[in-house]
Amino acid sequence: MAEVKLHGIWFSPFLYRVIWALKLKGISYEYIEEDLSNKSPLLLQYNPVHKKIPVLVHSRKPICESMIIIEYIEEKWPQTPLLPSDPYERAKARFWVKFVEEKAPAIWSLYRSTGEEQKKALKDSSEMLKILEEQGLGEKKFFGGDTIGIVDIAFGVIAHWFGVFEEIVEVKVLEAHAFPRLHAWKENFEEVPVIKENLPDRDKMLDYFKKRRMEILSASQ
Amino acid sequence: MAEVKLHGIWFSPFLYRVIWALKLKGISYEYIEEDLSNKSPLLLQYNPVHKKIPVLVHSRKPICESMIIIEYIEEKWPQTPLLPSDPYERAKARFWVKFVEEKAPAIWSLYRSTGEEQKKALKDSSEMLKILEEQGLGEKKFFGGDTIGIVDIAFGVIAHWFGVFEEIVEVKVLEAHAFPRLHAWKENFEEVPVIKENLPDRDKMLDYFKKRRMEILSASQ
Repeated sequence: MAEVKLHGIWFSPFLYRVIWALKLKGISYEYIEEDLSNKSPLLLQYNPVHKKIPVLVHSRKPICESMIIIEYIEEKWPQTPLLPSDPYERAKARFWVKFVEEKAPAIWSLYRSTGEEQKKALKDSSEMLKILEEQGLGEKKFFGGDTIGIVDIAFGVIAHWFGVFEEIVEVKVLEAHAFPRLHAWKENFEEVPVIKENLPDRDKMLDYFKKRRMEILSASQ
Repeated sequence: MAEVKLHGIWFSPFLYRVIWALKLKGISYEYIEEDLSNKSPLLLQYNPVHKKIPVLVHSRKPICESMIIIEYIEEKWPQTPLLPSDPYERAKARFWVKFVEEKAPAIWSLYRSTGEEQKKALKDSSEMLKILEEQGLGEKKFFGGDTIGIVDIAFGVIAHWFGVFEEIVEVKVLEAHAFPRLHAWKENFEEVPVIKENLPDRDKMLDYFKKRRMEILSASQ
């Protein structure tokens, strides 16, 4: 029986946060694919409050919520640190993690909506990116400095998923001329071997998310 | 010049989280009262993203967001620990902190609204308390066990502020018969000397929040 198990759904950016953290630290694990429309009794037992993936199970104990799982991984396996060691720098990293947790739902809203709601989501997404561009990233290669860290991992949804959503709803927000630093960050991020080798297939995502959007929109009519 | 300064607004439960943590650890600080309607240039400089209190300034460096400030305080001053030492127990504590950060806005919504919106806020507040009662607290005296910790501090708004809001909008949610464990927790929490000695005056809060609610409701008409 594997000591580390990870329950996920193949297209989830929250799942990939955990995969990247485990791979960056060289921890082997067993992956268990969940079915969103038919959640396993084990998942419901592990995460009775939110009933959501990802769940990391370490020595039979479940840990829920992707960014909390990453703090756990960091404490259990300190090799290849994902957080700075200085408490002030750690607080700054956690500030940006909390920022993206609170603001990134706008990206999902952009993908799930039409009309006025979509306009608002577009405005909110742009404002989020503007703050990241001007105040979050600065002149650094990664949010963590020269190497990727917890903030970059938290922002993974912007790197790989946002472009898929933009294509589906036919808008373009994260353009190089508007967000030069973030655009460069996205390219740097996706060139990191652990990231490049661990991303869901873009075409498969496009198909899935297109179909899912049709279902969401027809259900809300 | 004091090494630790704390910017706040007297009635804020987010401010009190930080006050409790500092007092529990015996750290002296200088308190600076901000004016919500006329924020100081220093506050805007310290927290340009959210422009909100509390801000802790330690050795001239600002830290924002109440629960991130508490993790910082914990790392800088390890005496009287507020988080468990075991990584799994730490993850569980952070899970409940995140839970209250995500769900407690329902309490504020209950206070700020009327009609259908208030009904929804009432339902959401009750569901949050039910999960805390059944899954969060269990048979423990405090969320942290025998002594108060980070989760209890995060939930302070339920102990002291929620009752004020209930009185103003004339509903009663947190009743002893419906939530016996949470009700006992609230009493235990408010009996801890550092908590009891550091709470905003209830009558002053009632006056302030009543007046504020009238302003909010007339502005939204």
